[in-house]
Amino acid sequence: MKQLIDTAMGRRNGDLVLKNGKIIDVFSGNIFTADVAITDGKICGVGNYSSDNEADLHGKYVIPGLIDTHMHIESSMVTPAEYAKTVMPHGITTVIADPHEITNVCGENGLKFMKKSAETVPLDIKFMLPSCVPATPFEHSGAALTAEDTKRLAPDFFGIGEMMNYPGIVNCDEETLSKLIGDRIDGHAPMLTGNGLDAYISAGIKTDHECGNTEEMLEKISKGMYILIREGTLSKDLAHLINGLNPYTLRRCMFCTDDRFIGEIHRSGSIDYCIRESIELGIKPIDAIIMATQNAAECYGMKQKGAIAPSYDADIIISEDLSLTKITQVYKDGILVAQNGAALFDTTPTDISSVINSVHLPKITPNFFAFMPKSEFFPAIELIPDTIVTKKVSAKISDSLSKVCVIERHHNLGTKGFGFVTNYGIKNAAIATSIGHDSHNIIVIGDNDVDMAEAVNALGKSGGIAISKNGEILEHLPLEIAGLISTKPAAEVISQHDKLCKTAREIGVTDGIEPFLSLAFLPLPVIPEIRVTDMGLFDVTKFEFIE
Amino acid sequence: MKQLIDTAMGRRNGDLVLKNGKIIDVFSGNIFTADVAITDGKICGVGNYSSDNEADLHGKYVIPGLIDTHMHIESSMVTPAEYAKTVMPHGITTVIADPHEITNVCGENGLKFMKKSAETVPLDIKFMLPSCVPATPFEHSGAALTAEDTKRLAPDFFGIGEMMNYPGIVNCDEETLSKLIGDRIDGHAPMLTGNGLDAYISAGIKTDHECGNTEEMLEKISKGMYILIREGTLSKDLAHLINGLNPYTLRRCMFCTDDRFIGEIHRSGSIDYCIRESIELGIKPIDAIIMATQNAAECYGMKQKGAIAPSYDADIIISEDLSLTKITQVYKDGILVAQNGAALFDTTPTDISSVINSVHLPKITPNFFAFMPKSEFFPAIELIPDTIVTKKVSAKISDSLSKVCVIERHHNLGTKGFGFVTNYGIKNAAIATSIGHDSHNIIVIGDNDVDMAEAVNALGKSGGIAISKNGEILEHLPLEIAGLISTKPAAEVISQHDKLCKTAREIGVTDGIEPFLSLAFLPLPVIPEIRVTDMGLFDVTKFEFIE
Repeated sequence: MKQLIDTAMGRRNGDLVLKNGKIIDVFSGNIFTADVAITDGKICGVGNYSSDNEADLHGKYVIPGLIDTHMHIESSMVTPAEYAKTVMPHGITTVIADPHEITNVCGENGLKFMKKSAETVPLDIKFMLPSCVPATPFEHSGAALTAEDTKRLAPDFFGIGEMMNYPGIVNCDEETLSKLIGDRIDGHAPMLTGNGLDAYISAGIKTDHECGNTEEMLEKISKGMYILIREGTLSKDLAHLINGLNPYTLRRCMFCTDDRFIGEIHRSGSIDYCIRESIELGIKPIDAIIMATQNAAECYGMKQKGAIAPSYDADIIISEDLSLTKITQVYKDGILVAQNGAALFDTTPTDISSVINSVHLPKITPNFFAFMPKSEFFPAIELIPDTIVTKKVSAKISDSLSKVCVIERHHNLGTKGFGFVTNYGIKNAAIATSIGHDSHNIIVIGDNDVDMAEAVNALGKSGGIAISKNGEILEHLPLEIAGLISTKPAAEVISQHDKLCKTAREIGVTDGIEPFLSLAFLPLPVIPEIRVTDMGLFDVTKFEFIE
Repeated sequence: MKQLIDTAMGRRNGDLVLKNGKIIDVFSGNIFTADVAITDGKICGVGNYSSDNEADLHGKYVIPGLIDTHMHIESSMVTPAEYAKTVMPHGITTVIADPHEITNVCGENGLKFMKKSAETVPLDIKFMLPSCVPATPFEHSGAALTAEDTKRLAPDFFGIGEMMNYPGIVNCDEETLSKLIGDRIDGHAPMLTGNGLDAYISAGIKTDHECGNTEEMLEKISKGMYILIREGTLSKDLAHLINGLNPYTLRRCMFCTDDRFIGEIHRSGSIDYCIRESIELGIKPIDAIIMATQNAAECYGMKQKGAIAPSYDADIIISEDLSLTKITQVYKDGILVAQNGAALFDTTPTDISSVINSVHLPKITPNFFAFMPKSEFFPAIELIPDTIVTKKVSAKISDSLSKVCVIERHHNLGTKGFGFVTNYGIKNAAIATSIGHDSHNIIVIGDNDVDMAEAVNALGKSGGIAISKNGEILEHLPLEIAGLISTKPAAEVISQHDKLCKTAREIGVTDGIEPFLSLAFLPLPVIPEIRVTDMGLFDVTKFEFIE
């Protein structure tokens, strides 16, 4: 603190002075020219400063580092360290990460791995403790965190991760309520309104990132929730929410990515993309930036983040424009960490021994998939483009149907569930994946049992995504860590994933249907209308398994 | 929590339902009609609710309880309990109190007394730990709180009270910096700008209630400070600050009263007055209310205060108008505590034995005040109407001069300081008071030594304010607690104080000069230009005693 004061008073040189920048003042909504003095990773002065170590900004903008308020790093398919290398050049300096996916597979070992990997990079990754492991009782997960575990682990985490068990809350389930520890608890309450919403908020849950429309969003804001406007790879909410805000409600909103694939971040950005998109849709640049900085910091009680002002963390973006398409430098705690789109730091490998080999299955033969519906007409799944919601339809056996099977893979319990998808389009081929929200069992889809067995066997102990055709493996992206995350650099993962996408189209996957994420969400028994888990076909509307 | 959830879900009746109110929604800036369900002192639902215990509001406004963000209860001249009875009918449900005055007299006993008295009433009084006891080294106080004391006591307090020692901070005085504990530290930085302000904020101090003008206020906001717009009895800042705000900077502002006499609160209000005055000056009613509620709660991290929403404290004002001139009910934690201007709760007496008899002086004789300046012309004090700033002027002995003497009264050290005031106007009389910021020594002013001795002796061991004329005591308001606070009900204190004011005018105190507060601030050696303490006459501009 003394060094900050001494620097501010001019008795000591700042570690770094950013000269002649245009300061984005989130507190007044103004932009003004000044120098920024930095010492010990903190901003200690905004005014006229000089130092032996100066960077002349020549009038570029000085913008607080962006904050992603809710996300699952696992959905990027790369390690926290690789994630940081990709996202920091985009100006993201802090993320609030919920390691919900890896924990459903690896339990506490997953939490430890994520934290260890995060420690190797300058990105400020604040970990929430997952509250719903397993997510539902309708599937088998790899691990469970009880209320007792939650109580024991909570002090080491930033807060409690999204509480998806809305029925548990409003019905006062003892175990569920016991997990609500502290005053930083993320919510997850799609379509919840009225009395149910009052009850959910009364439990002390103060954020939501699942607003389907502006009416729902505005009710949640009125009732005291902060809204995390989500722009993920599959769920894109920004365009239909952002224009529902006024200057009052804007104060209660920020951005998050939730589930965003590393390739999309690389190509389009992350929270910087949210700012661009908001501006495109008519939001004032300063307001979009305030959402991504000050509002986010305020919501999560991060008093030293979100502004260019004395005593704030020196998390700073230098950009030629307010749309952040021309970010020239990113500083984290006063250290230059990215320049002209490239991260300037290296990552050191993290021990992965406790989170690999997470797939526990014997060799599968084609007759594993022998399954016939009991009647001529049976309930089937229709995928809908650009959403994870599915439609329950009536089908009969035909060439256009794809068979899907979800196989428990954590403890080799031998459970499997079958279903049929009407419009996936796959021909003479199969796709298998170990990403299956939220328990991440193996999902395999195909039109013949030979390819289905081949694709599952290709995953081996590691998991990943594999495509087989006519009995041969065409592509395989191993996801060695928990069957969710690659050990490879982001660029390799992106390139391999691009190939997978191309191949999926070649084997017939319907245009408009995302080939892998549409599979990954098939087992999630809380999203309407029909799902399939390792325990069977599930009617979400009736909330029961289909015989 | 279960009861809140059960009530929200309609499985249980609310303890109280306020029906058909117009809800002031601080989050959206809107006003809408709804019922408010309350259970266990918390709001658990805003919508359609019913209960065995309903109050039909017939369309009256439902407004969050107001928050006074910085104040010294001692300046009201009544106990915390009496203060609560006066202020709660005005809609104030939370105050952040800095017991700086009584601590300067009684040390930790003063802190304990204030907390004990506060416990007897429903007003939520959050105590800050005074950081500057004594306030300066240029006077003798009754007690001292060292950095070590501060460290020991801080966990039992809401935060650290206003850090007035700006030079100590910017010069990195070890003892001063050590007092900055935690992240809720109030500032006090009049006229501080530029590098000094950067340094002060870098120390982690994030509020200020001493802005002299809008330029100073806006610089402080830009640099991350929250601004507490003050409307005290002597220092009235609202009118010259409130119109300097825009929708962005407004978010960082709230109200405080700092030092406000109980009579003024009774007649004009407190934070409710700030709202009225702001509306009068052109601020939108919703914005004025947001400042007094949501902004205040946000600044001080009181997550459950400042809004009418589920999980919030049921601190609620029912009013017929948004200017709060027609408050019909005030609820605190769901309990009706005031109705139509009257408090509905009784106070129980607090043990005062450790904070009485704080004046330690022998009997004073007229020759105690024998004092003559050494030269024909000498420096004297000119009082300025409506401010505590004084002017240093040159004077010579004449009938129009008043003699002032400040006498150490805590430990009978025998120190005294003399000065002359040019425009106080008192004739054949004297006024003595034990209120003398911030060390609260005895101040006596008069035009003859007999009356001066008489007035001081009248204070006895208790202190208070006394007026003597021609050797007789005309009025005496005893302030038994620390010489600052009366043990009497507010109404009696107000009535007695009115008599004192009337008598002061009768003995000649100049119109426009507040007779007692102008004296009370005479010893404060940090306010320009010339002061007198028990250690002598002090030139504030030169920051040294005058020979």
